[in-house]
Amino acid sequence: METVRVALDARTYPVHIGAGVIDAEALYRPHLRAGRIAVVTNPVVGALYLERVQAALARAGASPAIEILVEDGERAKSWPGLDRVFDALLAARMGRDGLLVALGGGVVGDLAGFAAAVYQRGIPFLQVPTTLLAQVDSSVGGKTAVNHPRGKNMIGAFHQPAAVIADVGTLATLPERELRAGLAEVIKHGFALDAALVAWLENNMERLLAREAAALTHVVRRSCELKASMVAADERESGARALLNFGHTFGHAIELGAGYGVWLHGEAVAAGMAMAAELSVRAGLLPAVDAERVRRLIRAAGLPAAGPALAPERYLELMAGDKKAAGGRARYVVLQKVGRAILRDDIDERVAREAIAASVEGAPAAAAR
Amino acid sequence: METVRVALDARTYPVHIGAGVIDAEALYRPHLRAGRIAVVTNPVVGALYLERVQAALARAGASPAIEILVEDGERAKSWPGLDRVFDALLAARMGRDGLLVALGGGVVGDLAGFAAAVYQRGIPFLQVPTTLLAQVDSSVGGKTAVNHPRGKNMIGAFHQPAAVIADVGTLATLPERELRAGLAEVIKHGFALDAALVAWLENNMERLLAREAAALTHVVRRSCELKASMVAADERESGARALLNFGHTFGHAIELGAGYGVWLHGEAVAAGMAMAAELSVRAGLLPAVDAERVRRLIRAAGLPAAGPALAPERYLELMAGDKKAAGGRARYVVLQKVGRAILRDDIDERVAREAIAASVEGAPAAAAR
Repeated sequence: METVRVALDARTYPVHIGAGVIDAEALYRPHLRAGRIAVVTNPVVGALYLERVQAALARAGASPAIEILVEDGERAKSWPGLDRVFDALLAARMGRDGLLVALGGGVVGDLAGFAAAVYQRGIPFLQVPTTLLAQVDSSVGGKTAVNHPRGKNMIGAFHQPAAVIADVGTLATLPERELRAGLAEVIKHGFALDAALVAWLENNMERLLAREAAALTHVVRRSCELKASMVAADERESGARALLNFGHTFGHAIELGAGYGVWLHGEAVAAGMAMAAELSVRAGLLPAVDAERVRRLIRAAGLPAAGPALAPERYLELMAGDKKAAGGRARYVVLQKVGRAILRDDIDERVAREAIAASVEGAPAAAAR
Repeated sequence: METVRVALDARTYPVHIGAGVIDAEALYRPHLRAGRIAVVTNPVVGALYLERVQAALARAGASPAIEILVEDGERAKSWPGLDRVFDALLAARMGRDGLLVALGGGVVGDLAGFAAAVYQRGIPFLQVPTTLLAQVDSSVGGKTAVNHPRGKNMIGAFHQPAAVIADVGTLATLPERELRAGLAEVIKHGFALDAALVAWLENNMERLLAREAAALTHVVRRSCELKASMVAADERESGARALLNFGHTFGHAIELGAGYGVWLHGEAVAAGMAMAAELSVRAGLLPAVDAERVRRLIRAAGLPAAGPALAPERYLELMAGDKKAAGGRARYVVLQKVGRAILRDDIDERVAREAIAASVEGAPAAAAR
C-alpha cells in the first residue's frame, strides 16, 4: 500500500492506494464516529463491493451501515438523486455525528460528497473510488457537485473527504471503456504538470490496458501526488488548481452538446485535450509536434483525439456557460510545453474558432495530420 | 451608523446597523466584483425596497442587478425555491465572479445564502435583512439552509456573508406580529448570554414595540455583538455557538409539530425558551423565579410563553430528529442563571417529560403560576 497526503492544515487527509485496501479495516477505523454510517453506492458497484465494505466496517467495530443505492450513471447527479440520499439519512435519523461513505465512481463520489457537504450543514465522508477516473482524479481534492439542466456540476461545494481508500484491485471489474476514460485524466496530469509521467505513459500504455496492478498503482499514486500538490496550493481553485482543468472547458462543451452520458467524461476530456492542444499551437504557445504527442497518447489509450463535428460557434456558445469563464471572458487552459499548462484569457475568438474547426471529427486539417 | 465586526480571519466581515444604511452606496461598493449581481427577494419586500437597493448599487457603480423573486414565507426554503434562484442565475450566465444580495427576512437570507454557498461551488453574498429577526440573528453567522419535508434546515451550509447591511428603518413596515417574533431572538440573546440585556429589555420593551430607532439600533447592535463573539469562537457550532440555540430545540419541535408557518419561528422560539426554562428549573439548575422572569419578558413582548398542548411523547419524538441530538442522546440548552446558558446531554427523559407537561398551553402547573 502507498499513501499520499493531501496537505490542508487541520483537514489534511490520506489517500491510500493499493490492491486489497478496500478490505483493510484499519483504514476505516480512525474515521468512525458516535453516530451512524451510510454507504452510498449504485446497484452495479454495490453488488460487487458493498459486502466487503460492510465486512471491513464491522471488523473496524462499526454497526452495520445504512445502504443507499442511487441510479447508475450521470443522471444520479441530480436533485432526485440527492434527495434520495437525504431522505434515507433523515429516515434513519442520522445526526451531525454521522459518516458517509462514497463507494463507486465519480458520479457516486460527487453526489455523496455533496450530500455530505450540505447534510445538516456538513458531515464527514470517506471516498472509496472503484473506477480509474475516480481514483486518479475525482475522489481527491474535495470538489463535489450535482448537475443542473443548464449545466454540469453547477451546484456543488468544496468538501474534502476524511480519507480516500483507492483499491486498484477493484479496477479488474471495470468495463474496458471506463478504464480508457480514466486514463484520460492520467494523460491530463502528465501533459498539464509532469513531462516524466507523459514519457512513462508513452512506454507503459500496454501494461495499463492489461490492468497490471503495479502499473495501475504507479499512475494512481503519481496522479494523486500531482493533484494533491495543486489542491494544497489552491484548495478552492482561485488560481493554480485551474490548470487541472486542461481539456475540461472543451470537454464540458462536448458532454453538454452531446447530452450527458453519450460521451463518457474521460472521453470528452480526451477530445477536449486534443482541442486545447490545437488551440495552444494556433495561439503560438506550443510547437505543433507536441500537440501531435497529445493526440498520439490519447489514441494509444483508445480514446478520441477529436471533438464531435459541431460548428465552432456552437462550441463557443456551450463554453460560455462554463463556470471557468471569468467576467464573461473566455478563459482557456493551454499548454506551453509538455508538462506545463497555463491559464490564458486573452486568446482571440477567431483563433479559438479556427482551432475548433481544425480539431473536430472530419476536419481536413486533422485528417491531414 | 454603528458597525460590528464578525472576526473570522480572512473572512472577517462588518455588520452595519442604522437608519437609512440600505441607501448607502459606500457600503456596497467594496463588494462589487467583475461579474453580475443578483438580488434575491420576495414580492412584498421587493415592492418596498428593491428600487432603493438597485439605486444604491447603481450609485456604487454596478450595472443593474438581476432581480429574483421567491415566494413569501417558509415554503420558499425548499428545493423549488432554490431551483428558481439557480435557474435565474444560470439563465443570466452568472459566473463564479458574481455576487448575490439577500434582501428580506430570515427565509430570503437562508435561501439566498445557501444558493450562494453552492452555486458553482460558492460565490460571495451580502445580507440586507429587513426583519428584526434577520437583523438580530439570522443574517449574522453564516448559517444558511433550506428545509426538507422531514425537518427544518436539514440541508444547508456554513457560508459567511461578505457584509451585513441592517437598516432599522425598514422595520417601520414590518407587520406587528413579525416585530414581536424578532424580539424573541433578542430575549434569547439576553437570557442565554447577557443579563444586562435582559434588564435593559425589562425596562425598554415599550420603546421597542413603538419602533423607536435608537432602541432598535441598541438591541440590533447588542445582539450582533453577542452573536459575533459566539460565531468567532465557534464558527461551525461544534461547541459554544450551540448556546445560541436556547429555546430552539423545543421551538423546532413546535414548528414541526404545527406544520411550518403556523407558528412564526420567533413565536416558537419564545414558547421554546419558556419550556427550556421550565426544564432548567426541574433539572435543578435554575431558580424558579428566573424561569418566571423568562415567561414575564416573553409575555411583555406579546409572545407565547407556553408550547402547544401536544403530548410530551410527541415533543420528544419531534425533537429526536433535531440535528442538535448527538449520538442519539437528547442534548438541551438550559439556563444556569439569567445570562448564562449551558449545554447538557444528561437530563433524565422523565424530567424532560414532566417539564414539557408543565409548560404547554393549559398545563395546570403553568396556569397556577
